[in-house]
Amino acid sequence: MATKVGLEEVRAAATRVSGSLHRTEVITCSTLDFMSGYKLFFKTEMWQKTGSFKARGALNAIKSCLERGSNPPMIVTHSSGNHGQAVAWAAKHCQLPCTVVVPEGTPVVKCEAIEGYGARLVKCHPTPTGRKEMADKIAKETGGKIVHPYDDYDVIAGQGTIGLELIKQVEDLDVVLVPISGGGMTSGIAVAVKSIKPDCKVIAVEPEGKDLWRSLESKERLWPNPPQFLNTIAEGIMTQQVGQVTFPLLCDLVDGVITVNDKEMAEGCRLAAERMKVMVEAASGAALAAALSDKMKDFAPEGKKIGVILCGGNVDMKKLPWLLEKVINQ
Amino acid sequence: MATKVGLEEVRAAATRVSGSLHRTEVITCSTLDFMSGYKLFFKTEMWQKTGSFKARGALNAIKSCLERGSNPPMIVTHSSGNHGQAVAWAAKHCQLPCTVVVPEGTPVVKCEAIEGYGARLVKCHPTPTGRKEMADKIAKETGGKIVHPYDDYDVIAGQGTIGLELIKQVEDLDVVLVPISGGGMTSGIAVAVKSIKPDCKVIAVEPEGKDLWRSLESKERLWPNPPQFLNTIAEGIMTQQVGQVTFPLLCDLVDGVITVNDKEMAEGCRLAAERMKVMVEAASGAALAAALSDKMKDFAPEGKKIGVILCGGNVDMKKLPWLLEKVINQ
Repeated sequence: MATKVGLEEVRAAATRVSGSLHRTEVITCSTLDFMSGYKLFFKTEMWQKTGSFKARGALNAIKSCLERGSNPPMIVTHSSGNHGQAVAWAAKHCQLPCTVVVPEGTPVVKCEAIEGYGARLVKCHPTPTGRKEMADKIAKETGGKIVHPYDDYDVIAGQGTIGLELIKQVEDLDVVLVPISGGGMTSGIAVAVKSIKPDCKVIAVEPEGKDLWRSLESKERLWPNPPQFLNTIAEGIMTQQVGQVTFPLLCDLVDGVITVNDKEMAEGCRLAAERMKVMVEAASGAALAAALSDKMKDFAPEGKKIGVILCGGNVDMKKLPWLLEKVINQ
Repeated sequence: MATKVGLEEVRAAATRVSGSLHRTEVITCSTLDFMSGYKLFFKTEMWQKTGSFKARGALNAIKSCLERGSNPPMIVTHSSGNHGQAVAWAAKHCQLPCTVVVPEGTPVVKCEAIEGYGARLVKCHPTPTGRKEMADKIAKETGGKIVHPYDDYDVIAGQGTIGLELIKQVEDLDVVLVPISGGGMTSGIAVAVKSIKPDCKVIAVEPEGKDLWRSLESKERLWPNPPQFLNTIAEGIMTQQVGQVTFPLLCDLVDGVITVNDKEMAEGCRLAAERMKVMVEAASGAALAAALSDKMKDFAPEGKKIGVILCGGNVDMKKLPWLLEKVINQ
């Protein structure tokens, strides 16, 4: 595993994965510009391979590992979501077998998506520790390599390629809004953006209950242990604590945090579908919701150029965010 | 009004509207290629101004009218749907006042969309004849110009620009699948495509109950009168009869018809959202459904290049096609 991440590592990642991944488009929408008072630039990671940005970090981690000469007989991870799909895809792309540990009770559609990329599924007890233990056990038995969803410099460098692209695609960007979970994408984008354009603000967008700013400001991990999941409709950003590796990067590089609730995220998804005709998941809706929130005024006056990371589009078509009872009754 | 439409008129329309309208992208999806057995090329008219292809014909009709030196004090049309929005937008774009006649009971969201483009709304009895009479009355009183949704050579030429673009964007296209209602888009695309690449097949995609092929083959209008609406979830293609102006063009130029039912259209919309992360309306879903249907084998062997017109993306976000009870219980 790499031992640090800077602009050089992100640039190397970009070279490493180019040709295998999409340089996703940046799209705009005059109605949403009008509604927000800003010039919004949407980075469309729902059109990335596997339907989310996670393919970037997963592929960079596996390719880096191979480049360093280690030849793992197996790639292992634990995630029923976007990271699981991304690792399965990236392993297949590198012609390596892959095992994905998912909690019992994972919806069939998600299991099929992972198996669709040729990975083997192993079920485990549906707890954060249960998943980790099972993945560790399989890695140990097989000599396999575990690809962590965020606490890995290669993964962070891979996600950083989003920032590298965005800063080239949009001249004079003032702010980037990044949905945050473990912090791999946010720290990666921050490394790239801050290295190239230090005055561009990087704002993390979190679900209620994460309380990230308190920990970042005090540079102390003030979250309760053991790690918990947040009560949010955004499956992609449910993890309350950011990573051990990502935390110091985030403390150094993140300029602020905007908190959005379920109803706002769902409305973000609805507006993306209605106005831009794109289908995004709740975590992407969170970034759009942040762009539309009053809290933006703390970071940028009207008219500024705002990058909005639409991080993924893997949605259960029967459970669209804005139609969920939980959201409607909120 | 123009008195004919050929490649020259479509090319003139393209020049006339360029700069004001989008040259919509063509997108692809490997999963849908695999599912269909073809190479599918999706023309993304849901990203056209006003969210549907209708902006092309409306703008060409109004601009052509101005070019011919007539200076109508008012633009008039009757449509609560995509055509109403498109005419309202095009009139505003040309700085002309606009009145749109809509049937009583039109959902508030549609009325707001039309008013959002600055047009005046007039309500009328909710029958095809009621709408037409009211529009005629207003046009007579104001000296206004009526923009017909399809039976107008300028409108047909405007829609034809889709075909002109597509045939340039995709080399060696074998088939184009076009959702059909009054036939303005289908005849326009057919004029353009057949003029440039005569061996490219133009297939109209219709809802059940339209029975277009029988009339085309016999070159006789075999539909019952007065004109009826079909019982379909696809509001955009409900009209049973094609136009008086479009019919002879369709008889000459259309190579075949594929019929799809509500469930197939809804599944087309679901797949577009799930696999391509784009939001399209039921008429667009119809074109994708046709590409996936067994009937395609009558027109092209596996592996051929198929253009699929995603004609619009104006969907009520609370009534998504694949979640409609009517579809689920079918």
